Amino acid sequence: MKLATLKTHERDGVLVVVSKDLQRCQKIADIATLQYALDHWQDCAPKLQAVYDTLNANENTGEAFDEAACHSPLPRAYQWADGSAYINHVELVRKARGASVPESFYEDPLMYQGGSDSFLAPHDDITAHEDWGIDLEAEVAVITGDVPLGASADEAAKAIRLVMLVNDVSLRNLIPDELAKGFGFFQSKPASAFSPVAVTPDELTAWQGSKLHLPLVVHINDKPFGKPNAGTDMTFDFGQLIAHAAKTRNLAAGTIIGSGTVSNKQDSLWGSSIEHGGVGYCCLAELRMYESIESKAQTPFLKHGDTVRIEMFDENHENIFGTIKNTVNAINRQA
Amino acid sequence: MKLATLKTHERDGVLVVVSKDLQRCQKIADIATLQYALDHWQDCAPKLQAVYDTLNANENTGEAFDEAACHSPLPRAYQWADGSAYINHVELVRKARGASVPESFYEDPLMYQGGSDSFLAPHDDITAHEDWGIDLEAEVAVITGDVPLGASADEAAKAIRLVMLVNDVSLRNLIPDELAKGFGFFQSKPASAFSPVAVTPDELTAWQGSKLHLPLVVHINDKPFGKPNAGTDMTFDFGQLIAHAAKTRNLAAGTIIGSGTVSNKQDSLWGSSIEHGGVGYCCLAELRMYESIESKAQTPFLKHGDTVRIEMFDENHENIFGTIKNTVNAINRQA
Repeated sequence: MKLATLKTHERDGVLVVVSKDLQRCQKIADIATLQYALDHWQDCAPKLQAVYDTLNANENTGEAFDEAACHSPLPRAYQWADGSAYINHVELVRKARGASVPESFYEDPLMYQGGSDSFLAPHDDITAHEDWGIDLEAEVAVITGDVPLGASADEAAKAIRLVMLVNDVSLRNLIPDELAKGFGFFQSKPASAFSPVAVTPDELTAWQGSKLHLPLVVHINDKPFGKPNAGTDMTFDFGQLIAHAAKTRNLAAGTIIGSGTVSNKQDSLWGSSIEHGGVGYCCLAELRMYESIESKAQTPFLKHGDTVRIEMFDENHENIFGTIKNTVNAINRQA
Repeated sequence: MKLATLKTHERDGVLVVVSKDLQRCQKIADIATLQYALDHWQDCAPKLQAVYDTLNANENTGEAFDEAACHSPLPRAYQWADGSAYINHVELVRKARGASVPESFYEDPLMYQGGSDSFLAPHDDITAHEDWGIDLEAEVAVITGDVPLGASADEAAKAIRLVMLVNDVSLRNLIPDELAKGFGFFQSKPASAFSPVAVTPDELTAWQGSKLHLPLVVHINDKPFGKPNAGTDMTFDFGQLIAHAAKTRNLAAGTIIGSGTVSNKQDSLWGSSIEHGGVGYCCLAELRMYESIESKAQTPFLKHGDTVRIEMFDENHENIFGTIKNTVNAINRQA
């Protein structure tokens, strides 16, 4: 089934079941929020599924669904942990600065704890200073149920409740100083935006082996920028990523785990961009790394007014999760 | 006023107002959880204050308050970010490995994003393998209201709603490898435990300049281990820590910001322990650093069966926040 959260005056918005074609939606009596549904999944899932089945069977049910009225499926979450499962991305980072990737990186996932107290809505602006080096990171993410401390990758995979897309906004020019301090990302990772719709794995024919085997489609200012396959070159599947997060602690229902920037192995700068026959990129940093390796990074980061679009289409070219569409805007603080 | 959360069958428990002497408590109609109160603070705070005033004025109101029935004031939170405001602690870490502290550390706080999806209750066991190097970290923490992106330290200080104590459990033997990966703490920081009671700053005569000027009292297995003053040698006050967290993003109501391990400057291993006239330590790592600097770390980390107690007393020797009391236990996974 497909679920979304509409904005209301409350911070958690209101949960709706969305039709498979993203045309209509319906609120559910007694299940006000997605977090509530996740907290009581055994009871709620069958009720939600019944609404979903009716919505798809009868075109006269529900009301019009408007992605622009959506919040992120979880407008705020108790946990957002982002992996870095596409090692190609890490290899390029290292290669660009003349370093090699430690062997352990192929066994032990990279993961950072992200801020989850207030996400951007799917169509919200990104407000940031240009000199912070504003970048997108297009990724796949899952929402889990409860996962016990020490869960195996197989156990962890069974706890996956929903799949989404995410734009993990990154402030590249703040990252080097922050990582040098040794405590990981903080200021360099402002609020992320998730796709309007979250989808159960059973709904996704391309969900196999805890990976989503479809191209992740990225546009910058309506120009094709990336379309790497999210099922290709993913060194750690979502079961492994969740098990990594659960090694020393329980994970509570509503935990969001990200894949890291989707990235397929390509030979070189020439041929990697979409216009030259490649699959392109899911972040500007990756293009800049190819440029660095061959000469000098020259593609700028995002400027005020730039718009990023992230989406994924099924075998019938239908939009699965709705569209993340973030325009970059200046910070305009009221005194 | 003083607030706590009693455990119920629901994940967020139920909010109670607690009498100043921690003897009695009362539930509040229409304000079920602390997160709800924080989300609607302008409306809720006067109602809670009225209950608090009545509770203190009349000994026949309310019911008996039992710290053992408490969850952490926020059993789960949308954000838990922990600073490292007592630079003495950082200086010792560095000195123990023969490195100096970068100048920037005195201007720019260290802070990491912690996991907040499920905290330990104040009297819960810490379940972990001994070979992970289990350590306590006794700290002060605050819960904020909404803080806008770019807030100044003064603005941020005004957003402090509640003050608590915290045991930021750390797995010392997992830290070096994890930090070497560059993405900060994750597995090395399992669930933290907060004090049974959270207290508004207006209630604390020792709250001055966004610091809490009282000794933080730590016992290990009922033996005095630390009593450094939390208002002394705190390089960054809570306003500065919150402003650091809000530099590139809004912070939502219910954000918890920690001080980092409380640590007062002491000359050397000899004289720093309580039994030798010092103020002792708020984590075993600090004692081990003194030992390393002078010879070799020899005090072991926590063993199964060890109990840590963390509390703070006012000018009249009254327990302000109740007691954090965590016993270390082996992981006992059901298949």
